[in-house]
Amino acid sequence: MASLGNSGSASSPMVMLAPKTKTKKRHFMQQKVKVFRASDPMLSVFMWGVNHSINDLNQVPVPVMLLPDDFKANTKIKVNNHLFNKENLPSHFEFKEYCPQVFRNLRERFGIEDLDYQASLARSAPMKGDGQGEGLLFTSYDRTLIVKQISSEEVADMHNILSEYHQHIVKCHGSTLLPQFLGMYRITVESEDTYLIVMRNMFSHRLLVHRKYDLKGSLVDREASDKEKVKELPTFKDMDFRNNMQKVYVTEEQKEKMMEKLNRDVEFLVKLKIMDYSLLLGIHDVARGEREEEEAEEPCYEDDADPENGLAPALQVGSYGTSPEGIAGYMNSIKPLGPGEFDPYIDVYAVKSAPGAPQREVYFMGLIDVLTQYDTKKKAAHAAKTVKHGAGAEISTVHPEQYAKRFREFISNIFA
Amino acid sequence: MASLGNSGSASSPMVMLAPKTKTKKRHFMQQKVKVFRASDPMLSVFMWGVNHSINDLNQVPVPVMLLPDDFKANTKIKVNNHLFNKENLPSHFEFKEYCPQVFRNLRERFGIEDLDYQASLARSAPMKGDGQGEGLLFTSYDRTLIVKQISSEEVADMHNILSEYHQHIVKCHGSTLLPQFLGMYRITVESEDTYLIVMRNMFSHRLLVHRKYDLKGSLVDREASDKEKVKELPTFKDMDFRNNMQKVYVTEEQKEKMMEKLNRDVEFLVKLKIMDYSLLLGIHDVARGEREEEEAEEPCYEDDADPENGLAPALQVGSYGTSPEGIAGYMNSIKPLGPGEFDPYIDVYAVKSAPGAPQREVYFMGLIDVLTQYDTKKKAAHAAKTVKHGAGAEISTVHPEQYAKRFREFISNIFA
Repeated sequence: MASLGNSGSASSPMVMLAPKTKTKKRHFMQQKVKVFRASDPMLSVFMWGVNHSINDLNQVPVPVMLLPDDFKANTKIKVNNHLFNKENLPSHFEFKEYCPQVFRNLRERFGIEDLDYQASLARSAPMKGDGQGEGLLFTSYDRTLIVKQISSEEVADMHNILSEYHQHIVKCHGSTLLPQFLGMYRITVESEDTYLIVMRNMFSHRLLVHRKYDLKGSLVDREASDKEKVKELPTFKDMDFRNNMQKVYVTEEQKEKMMEKLNRDVEFLVKLKIMDYSLLLGIHDVARGEREEEEAEEPCYEDDADPENGLAPALQVGSYGTSPEGIAGYMNSIKPLGPGEFDPYIDVYAVKSAPGAPQREVYFMGLIDVLTQYDTKKKAAHAAKTVKHGAGAEISTVHPEQYAKRFREFISNIFA
Repeated sequence: MASLGNSGSASSPMVMLAPKTKTKKRHFMQQKVKVFRASDPMLSVFMWGVNHSINDLNQVPVPVMLLPDDFKANTKIKVNNHLFNKENLPSHFEFKEYCPQVFRNLRERFGIEDLDYQASLARSAPMKGDGQGEGLLFTSYDRTLIVKQISSEEVADMHNILSEYHQHIVKCHGSTLLPQFLGMYRITVESEDTYLIVMRNMFSHRLLVHRKYDLKGSLVDREASDKEKVKELPTFKDMDFRNNMQKVYVTEEQKEKMMEKLNRDVEFLVKLKIMDYSLLLGIHDVARGEREEEEAEEPCYEDDADPENGLAPALQVGSYGTSPEGIAGYMNSIKPLGPGEFDPYIDVYAVKSAPGAPQREVYFMGLIDVLTQYDTKKKAAHAAKTVKHGAGAEISTVHPEQYAKRFREFISNIFA
């Protein structure tokens, strides 16, 4: 199954790796020279490549306007090191960037400075997810970005929709529930190609998500398995949402704003004959977050140095002197945030619960898995499901228009 | 003939391109994005490559000590752009850097910061020389560095002596009359290889040289031709030096310091069986410099925008915000220098005339053409000269020890 965006079927690693507290002290040594040394050579090359790409783009003028050729462009760089820097990088590798001017423009429209993007991805190694999905999934070390492995077919799909996607982002002024696609790359190490797409994290870089739903608007086959339910952060589905009597408590104004975005985005997806996307819903429980924060402040947690990515603390946080701190850097350092607070320019998918809500919550809502077009593959799935459930049963594999209608109806009813 | 260092047989372009005045105002537009757009695609790639190389090295740790492998190392980067940045760079090119860690170490020992080196070479296109030598010769836009085309044989020669050269620089603490080798590269554009070596300019980046000698210590065939003599800045030779009653008026202390360096350097060259090198002597006449400066301040010169390299003013000086200004940048902006004054950390080959000298002068003295080893090629030249002048005639092609002895004797007598 083609899936782009943070796959709802996998337990999202960026959630589990979210900081347990905003005040936890980390005693990192500062180092002057930043080394692209990740546990995985592919990841080292990715860091090297993003760093190189942004440095390089910095020397390339921004075009007055994007032209059709920019949507077919790419830049390939092949490195062969002989007796040089072999401690940190493979001696032979290739880095390919797709449509550099388009993604640069998208980053700008999404309010992400290139130097922050570079710092978030290359300052320290992205953290590996639990790999439950079809490919690798990483979260940038500052948790603002998701790096997702995709297939070469998905790279082609992305090229097919990129021009329309870009137009959509222009029209909606970057205000969308769709994934914010920020860069697409191919890394070649030892003749093995890895395709990666970078997106903004739909969840928070600092508020832990305590409950998570993947909603498609269908009740057939849409319940978390028993195996899923015992996980630390299960991905619940439509049926669970109904059974849990779950509601999203936001103001009428917020709901309208949200549905307006959703309608615009779904219309766009219908136009591209895309379906099978989901609404990813993450819920941060503010009171629970506060408790966890207090617990995490106990001494035994003090020197936690993110053992998740297997790097020594000294290698994790480099220092470029006065250079950018990454996407979340400025806010983190300047403005201390209280419990349940977030910076809407960083956590762009976040909405606070309304004043009268049963409990204080923060919701993260975005559309994921948006690269499935209604093609032959889907027709096959449709046929299979019809056989299983009988024609006319409420199934999730339908035509794009039907899918959109049902999806919109379901989502409009998740609010209290 | 193999020649490294600023070839004495060619009229040095960095002299002719030296600024006519330190106060001449240039009305350059500042631009945010620096574009590597030189008149020559090879030069654009060189600028791109140096910029890339220094950015890249910035991410590679400095080794505790250089190892034999570092003297055989290289890094090759091959770029293929498809529909991307084709206005500024060739779509396909390769950039190879030789012994990156060694040259980085040499730059440090010569007191040149990598970011200044990068700015001096990549901020604006190097200026082309008059091409009288065997290959291309460029001066960095700020006139602090020389970029010289060499042959692949000279690249091999350089590899042969690099380890000894490095040891010599370590021993003399960077205080030498030898060329300061700072980087060696291969640029490939349209399957054509160009080898370049970067050295510090032996002349001043701001004081014009008014008279120039190439001295070898031999009087045979060592006189500037009539054709040479009518040039704006002829390269005079040993015979001319004697006929002109030329003298170098420096203090006894300066002379001793200079001869001490020379003896140490010549000893090093003898050890490597190198010969046929010259002392390049440039003379700045302070009074004449002052007059020229006043003339140059006349309005008609005001908007001089270096037409020599055929670039529009707006493309010449970029701005990196607070980034380094290049090797000469700091001094140029902070400390205004009077007539005949120089910064000894930038114009390292410069010596002021002694207080009692007939006229105020500044001398620039360094050893050039230091890559000629006493090999079969030289033996052939020796044979040819013996035939022409008869055995026993005072000829310039002799054995390295003899050459050194004669050279040292001659140079020790150039002082007043």
